[in-house]
Amino acid sequence: MILQQYKEGALTLEAATAALQHDEPSVLNLGFANLDLQRQKRCGFPEVVYCAGKTVGQSVQILRVLMKQYDNVIGTRASKDVYDKLAPEIPDAQYDELARMVYQFKDKTVVNGDRVIAVITAGTSDIPVAEEAALTAEIMGNKVERIYDVGVAGLHRLLNRSEEIRRANVCVVVAGMEGALASVVGGLVDKPVVAVPTSIGYGANFHGLSALLAMLNSCAAGVSVVNIDNGFGAGRMADMINRMR
Amino acid sequence: MILQQYKEGALTLEAATAALQHDEPSVLNLGFANLDLQRQKRCGFPEVVYCAGKTVGQSVQILRVLMKQYDNVIGTRASKDVYDKLAPEIPDAQYDELARMVYQFKDKTVVNGDRVIAVITAGTSDIPVAEEAALTAEIMGNKVERIYDVGVAGLHRLLNRSEEIRRANVCVVVAGMEGALASVVGGLVDKPVVAVPTSIGYGANFHGLSALLAMLNSCAAGVSVVNIDNGFGAGRMADMINRMR
Amino acid sequence: MILQQYKEGALTLEAATAALQHDEPSVLNLGFANLDLQRQKRCGFPEVVYCAGKTVGQSVQILRVLMKQYDNVIGTRASKDVYDKLAPEIPDAQYDELARMVYQFKDKTVVNGDRVIAVITAGTSDIPVAEEAALTAEIMGNKVERIYDVGVAGLHRLLNRSEEIRRANVCVVVAGMEGALASVVGGLVDKPVVAVPTSIGYGANFHGLSALLAMLNSCAAGVSVVNIDNGFGAGRMADMINRMR
Amino acid sequence: MILQQYKEGALTLEAATAALQHDEPSVLNLGFANLDLQRQKRCGFPEVVYCAGKTVGQSVQILRVLMKQYDNVIGTRASKDVYDKLAPEIPDAQYDELARMVYQFKDKTVVNGDRVIAVITAGTSDIPVAEEAALTAEIMGNKVERIYDVGVAGLHRLLNRSEEIRRANVCVVVAGMEGALASVVGGLVDKPVVAVPTSIGYGANFHGLSALLAMLNSCAAGVSVVNIDNGFGAGRMADMINRMR
Amino acid sequence: MILQQYKEGALTLEAATAALQHDEPSVLNLGFANLDLQRQKRCGFPEVVYCAGKTVGQSVQILRVLMKQYDNVIGTRASKDVYDKLAPEIPDAQYDELARMVYQFKDKTVVNGDRVIAVITAGTSDIPVAEEAALTAEIMGNKVERIYDVGVAGLHRLLNRSEEIRRANVCVVVAGMEGALASVVGGLVDKPVVAVPTSIGYGANFHGLSALLAMLNSCAAGVSVVNIDNGFGAGRMADMINRMR
Amino acid sequence: MILQQYKEGALTLEAATAALQHDEPSVLNLGFANLDLQRQKRCGFPEVVYCAGKTVGQSVQILRVLMKQYDNVIGTRASKDVYDKLAPEIPDAQYDELARMVYQFKDKTVVNGDRVIAVITAGTSDIPVAEEAALTAEIMGNKVERIYDVGVAGLHRLLNRSEEIRRANVCVVVAGMEGALASVVGGLVDKPVVAVPTSIGYGANFHGLSALLAMLNSCAAGVSVVNIDNGFGAGRMADMINRMR
Amino acid sequence: MILQQYKEGALTLEAATAALQHDEPSVLNLGFANLDLQRQKRCGFPEVVYCAGKTVGQSVQILRVLMKQYDNVIGTRASKDVYDKLAPEIPDAQYDELARMVYQFKDKTVVNGDRVIAVITAGTSDIPVAEEAALTAEIMGNKVERIYDVGVAGLHRLLNRSEEIRRANVCVVVAGMEGALASVVGGLVDKPVVAVPTSIGYGANFHGLSALLAMLNSCAAGVSVVNIDNGFGAGRMADMINRMR
Amino acid sequence: MILQQYKEGALTLEAATAALQHDEPSVLNLGFANLDLQRQKRCGFPEVVYCAGKTVGQSVQILRVLMKQYDNVIGTRASKDVYDKLAPEIPDAQYDELARMVYQFKDKTVVNGDRVIAVITAGTSDIPVAEEAALTAEIMGNKVERIYDVGVAGLHRLLNRSEEIRRANVCVVVAGMEGALASVVGGLVDKPVVAVPTSIGYGANFHGLSALLAMLNSCAAGVSVVNIDNGFGAGRMADMINRMR
Repeated sequence: MILQQYKEGALTLEAATAALQHDEPSVLNLGFANLDLQRQKRCGFPEVVYCAGKTVGQSVQILRVLMKQYDNVIGTRASKDVYDKLAPEIPDAQYDELARMVYQFKDKTVVNGDRVIAVITAGTSDIPVAEEAALTAEIMGNKVERIYDVGVAGLHRLLNRSEEIRRANVCVVVAGMEGALASVVGGLVDKPVVAVPTSIGYGANFHGLSALLAMLNSCAAGVSVVNIDNGFGAGRMADMINRMR
Repeated sequence: MILQQYKEGALTLEAATAALQHDEPSVLNLGFANLDLQRQKRCGFPEVVYCAGKTVGQSVQILRVLMKQYDNVIGTRASKDVYDKLAPEIPDAQYDELARMVYQFKDKTVVNGDRVIAVITAGTSDIPVAEEAALTAEIMGNKVERIYDVGVAGLHRLLNRSEEIRRANVCVVVAGMEGALASVVGGLVDKPVVAVPTSIGYGANFHGLSALLAMLNSCAAGVSVVNIDNGFGAGRMADMINRMR
Repeated sequence: MILQQYKEGALTLEAATAALQHDEPSVLNLGFANLDLQRQKRCGFPEVVYCAGKTVGQSVQILRVLMKQYDNVIGTRASKDVYDKLAPEIPDAQYDELARMVYQFKDKTVVNGDRVIAVITAGTSDIPVAEEAALTAEIMGNKVERIYDVGVAGLHRLLNRSEEIRRANVCVVVAGMEGALASVVGGLVDKPVVAVPTSIGYGANFHGLSALLAMLNSCAAGVSVVNIDNGFGAGRMADMINRMR
Repeated sequence: MILQQYKEGALTLEAATAALQHDEPSVLNLGFANLDLQRQKRCGFPEVVYCAGKTVGQSVQILRVLMKQYDNVIGTRASKDVYDKLAPEIPDAQYDELARMVYQFKDKTVVNGDRVIAVITAGTSDIPVAEEAALTAEIMGNKVERIYDVGVAGLHRLLNRSEEIRRANVCVVVAGMEGALASVVGGLVDKPVVAVPTSIGYGANFHGLSALLAMLNSCAAGVSVVNIDNGFGAGRMADMINRMR
Repeated sequence: MILQQYKEGALTLEAATAALQHDEPSVLNLGFANLDLQRQKRCGFPEVVYCAGKTVGQSVQILRVLMKQYDNVIGTRASKDVYDKLAPEIPDAQYDELARMVYQFKDKTVVNGDRVIAVITAGTSDIPVAEEAALTAEIMGNKVERIYDVGVAGLHRLLNRSEEIRRANVCVVVAGMEGALASVVGGLVDKPVVAVPTSIGYGANFHGLSALLAMLNSCAAGVSVVNIDNGFGAGRMADMINRMR
Repeated sequence: MILQQYKEGALTLEAATAALQHDEPSVLNLGFANLDLQRQKRCGFPEVVYCAGKTVGQSVQILRVLMKQYDNVIGTRASKDVYDKLAPEIPDAQYDELARMVYQFKDKTVVNGDRVIAVITAGTSDIPVAEEAALTAEIMGNKVERIYDVGVAGLHRLLNRSEEIRRANVCVVVAGMEGALASVVGGLVDKPVVAVPTSIGYGANFHGLSALLAMLNSCAAGVSVVNIDNGFGAGRMADMINRMR
Repeated sequence: MILQQYKEGALTLEAATAALQHDEPSVLNLGFANLDLQRQKRCGFPEVVYCAGKTVGQSVQILRVLMKQYDNVIGTRASKDVYDKLAPEIPDAQYDELARMVYQFKDKTVVNGDRVIAVITAGTSDIPVAEEAALTAEIMGNKVERIYDVGVAGLHRLLNRSEEIRRANVCVVVAGMEGALASVVGGLVDKPVVAVPTSIGYGANFHGLSALLAMLNSCAAGVSVVNIDNGFGAGRMADMINRMR
Repeated sequence: MILQQYKEGALTLEAATAALQHDEPSVLNLGFANLDLQRQKRCGFPEVVYCAGKTVGQSVQILRVLMKQYDNVIGTRASKDVYDKLAPEIPDAQYDELARMVYQFKDKTVVNGDRVIAVITAGTSDIPVAEEAALTAEIMGNKVERIYDVGVAGLHRLLNRSEEIRRANVCVVVAGMEGALASVVGGLVDKPVVAVPTSIGYGANFHGLSALLAMLNSCAAGVSVVNIDNGFGAGRMADMINRMR
């Protein structure tokens, strides 16, 4: 695979040489990165690229290799620059500005067609994180229903949608500020709830700490929590739950 | 007043002498304490004694003076020892073990007979703090309605009581863990909500921090917050609001 | 209402279609937002729009709907861009740069003409937060008195104004740094005090934490606290208290 | 039901009277507690009693009612006193000292016979929390496999058991100190991982904060987190995931 | 000196031997402790013994040596056991239960007779810390005036004493909860203020953090701060300031 | 004074009118600010202006009044803009870019000619804070000696200067990172040490927290602490100590 | 080995059976514990038992197996009960009350006879942690020199011992409060320094946080840090460094 | 040396004059900096310059002096500006943009030719910190092996490289997020591990706190920790360990 990718220009000469020196069947060693080529087999989806902290060049080089190798690929927290550099070579690459995701979504098979993941937000400001979760779940083969801006300050907004929520197989609840929505949804359904605290708020929200602590201390059982603003993690967790058989 | 109290045994000789040396009309100086004799006039209720951190003897001596001087008196965070030492001399003194309050409640005039303060808890474990709030408000002349264990994990428990809650003029919401109840109540009523975070919970509740932050970040407006476990403060705030004219 | 607003241009075709699909009497569903049309009835004032974290377009679309529907409307933490986009269509829209509020203030009825809310600051730097509180209270129908820069480092500045302060029915105290002013005012008056910690300061003020903790631990009773820099919340709380009847 | 329970002695006269006054089909109001009688129907299992912060008497009274009404009932963080008071009347009540759980486990139907929940600990000291999770999952109808003391300081201990772990449908990972086990397990399996940080450790573990933060920041996807030492929450989450159909 | 102290029984044979092996003129090496015999010369007062964390035996052995060598000696945070073991041999040793200090105070020369250190507390509960400060300053040769329980909730109590306070040359202000007193005193005087936060309070006072942060952020200049509950440190700082010439 | 300042252009018409309406001898009310005209008399130096959080216009207007009224005036945390606007009218105004201070220093009388304040830094990066302290002390009439970059990693650098340090009457120690210098200096001298933690460092220094906590916990007595980066506060405290008589 | 240990009574029947079922050469599975029998080979010393959080019975059973198998064995944070139960069967077991260590130290070979590890404390109160470090290093085959109570408040105490310190090959520095000693020693030597923050102190030391942060921010290079009070970890790190060849 | 450097232009006239006034053999006093000229002799390498917080001019002036005096010199956290100003005069100066280091590396002697320091990262985003460590160690005379992007989410990537890792004499492990790699490596080797937490991550990683706490609480012994993102400190510690003889 290394030589072929080199030939196709996915790898530079330098990276290809480095990779050949470490010729391990399960890893593609680019020097600055060890691509885990067993991830899809082991965990059900290829390695997802966390682009923050990487240079644009590093992100592009990793994503190029993965996108040539796999149908569906995700890069999170990516600047538009990554997409712009990638697009000329990878025609199926897409970019979602809200979710800051660069991705390739060629295989649209829905894994569990009758199961639905509900992605629910407390407010409009939580939507970017929710979109990261929703898109992740969709690219991984799930049907997603978006229910946005139903926070507890106007409870009837939530209750109006409770039938939809109860029909879902997994709920992803995305909320900032006091994060109360996770507990309220958790009390309404008999399905697992994945809670995502967001950093929406100010002052004593301490960049998402208030919602994080609230969700960890939820009085409703069947709620578990991912990192602040970690839409991807919630989408992946929901996908894993949803593909349970 | 000093000499009379000395004669009646409320002050020791030492305290009386100290007090006389500082003969200020507005303060009774006991050396270890300066009783603020203008508090009732200035703030509407005599000085409330915070007994934690004081020796039993200090608490008793201060409360004795106040209970002889005023009809209604409150000592908070008091051990039963304080009451036991006080009771022989002050026949009207009472002790509430749950609320850890020692008090005298002789004047039962209700200040605003038609107005009600609702004291609402998320769980049974929050009741001691709620009782401190309720008792405080009652001793200060308010009508109180207790609505306990209506946390958001079972929303219908709260909605069942929503008529009572909406009829109240002020709501005191007492909740630990994720403290979501304050936001939900805040979204249901058009009256001021005084939120009391409690230390009920464990782990990432960090002794009440989770509920405190949640309440401070409530997405519902018209909610303000007092210290963790500060039932007295909430009762007093509700009283002040309720006596608005 | 949906069709009419569509006709008047307040809703895009897309938003109007979305709204019609969810035709719920109590909610206007814009897809990215569920406007709570019962808020005024339930809580006494229409939904207030928190503009931070929303795109300018989202804020504008929500405010446009609300401003066409209600006389008095508030958007908090709004950039001037929101106002600039809104102004051509909504001639009564106004913008306060200090308070970062965009608002419509057509109904100037004072709800309780004889009652006054005092908004008091410790320093000049606290004024933006204080103005958010004052303006909020005014738009909601209250008479407001501003008493600025009377912090405790020069106590006579405060004492000079104590008559005005005592005449108020509710006090909003806005202070950063050590937030001592809330306790001092709390000790001077027999009216409820709503304390607003600000992030004014540096170093160990930890973005407002010092004032927040100080106010939560106030030795004066009758003080409750809102989030750091939450002028709006304090104004709303004061309004709710003030309209008590 | 109220009168019958009164007759059988499960309710005191006082509690029965209180309950009758609030005769709501979905709640049993004991004054100090509102039992949520819809919980099983709504969420799949009767209300679980959090005994910490309740008096022994309150816990007993609530559990007695529930244990008479339902086959399988759980009380968490219960002292042995609760069990001792309950046992004479409720012959099927059991107590697990390690997990501090009092419970009734009469219906032993396994809901999803072929699915297994693996409960994995990093060390021996984490076992009490793990047992709370395992017992919870078992009482709720799941098959549980315990894999204890396989922390990352001796990786071969974990790798030796990797086949068992991979066969599980859900993994509950219980770890204190640096909580690294959650990430390592998360990287080995393609099933959802519910991570439970424990307070095992000292110093800069800050009562479980180190493991909590580590788990929230796991570089492996498909990991979500519950509160520190919250074995019950993890067991419940795993049960909810496992009963997905 | 070593042999003489051995002869007089202040040192055990073992300690004396250890000390002789390290015969350094400026240090007395007891193995578990290196007594700094230059401290008085270098810093104006002999080494003060912090007894917390030491065994009773270690504290006694160190204090015995110092009390035989110097007139005035201080051991802080000492249990009464230390005193009880020391008293038979050191007839001038004294113990103050409130301040938890064991000390010898033989030389009562007042260093600066006309200068006064005012030790001021916000409440009665702060007195133990204040006494540690006051006693420290007295033993080091200063005249101390105690002004207790003049917290800001009743400002007139403080203003009544303002003449005394203004006459002092240094003010030590001891306060818990919100610690506002330091700022108010700082604004009243033109003398240095040493502020001591105490751990008095609960909940969001976080064991003294609220007062500590408040004092560090004081809006009044001329205020500096010592550790929470560090009465000794404040007394020593005040002493150093007061002996300025 | 108001009218005269108005005539000289120091006050706008609006400000002068506002000031006249509140004609209080001790305060100059500018609406947005209450200048404390008793500060010099009460505390020995005119009000110092904290410019952060104020608009340039507000800072200028306040400083203009003060600089016309007093010889020596200080504005801290001022941007150069403040100076640039002030300079044309106030010829004696100066600006120190390092210390971010705008000031007027016309009266150069040294109050205590033979007493010296040593301002000592651990590193070069701490100099801006040190300069704020040194300049403050100088403008207030003290003789200052600067001893920079003598941190504990090279102890001989400090010991080389120990004679100078011991000769000082007060030491201001400015250090970031681990702040060890305060303890080491505190152990060398018999004079009061005012410690200033700086935010120099990164990572687990948490913006100065490491140095702050270290200094508060100094094992050397006679050390007290001001806020992180608060050079002004330290300079003022040192001045107050130094003018002790 | 399993059967032999069973015969000798080191394993109960139950444990032996469990162990046999999992007969893995590298692990001894006791059900509640998986003893890592490769640890000595892999890491140079048998598994060290962390006794906190384990029952006495669990600790005893694990230590019994290890002490029969290996010459030198360590159990940390052990109560004396563990030793008392172990002693009758394991005659070479010893207990150090100060260090709370139970251990077996049969092979006293010194691995690197000419190399010395210096264990240095700031105060007497730090000795228990230091002894844990020193004893650990000794049992692992190192020569240790103890230099106690040489904190920076009396620098000459440290400088007096600087020759000894410089001769060491590794320095373990144990200090609480402000932890300055680590930086000062780090600046004196050209050898690696392992710093151990202790929880000695109070107030703003926050259970060792002040020393921890100070040490992590040391301005001296060549300093690395272990957990608060982790004498064992420091001893082990020093041992690993010291056996470098 | 001063005059010669002045002649060569390394010192300005002003600096040279200042230096001459303080003519101390062990220090070069530049006024704003005291260069420690004994550092190499005392600690084995010349003073390393921390450029953050210094002006470009200060950094340049200090580095110029050192680079003329010593062969190998390091400036950390330097902007490229420092290099650009330095390069014309110091032809051997180099700049590494990733590591933000300016350095001179003229003496390439490897101190311990057969010993290797392995620098290992969890991810690609950790490489800048790792490069700071690797480069530091190399400039100080060590052989370094880089093993990047082998985090625990794909354990085989690490295990593939375990032979290389085990051959190293010291391991530097650089990881952000949950920092689990330090524990896993610590469990694989019998060599000292220096762990460097990085700030890579977001949300509840709190700028590196999660990895820092995880590493401090590592269940593997033989792991010690440096400050967040402190590649230099780890490289220096590894160098010190590696040069052990």
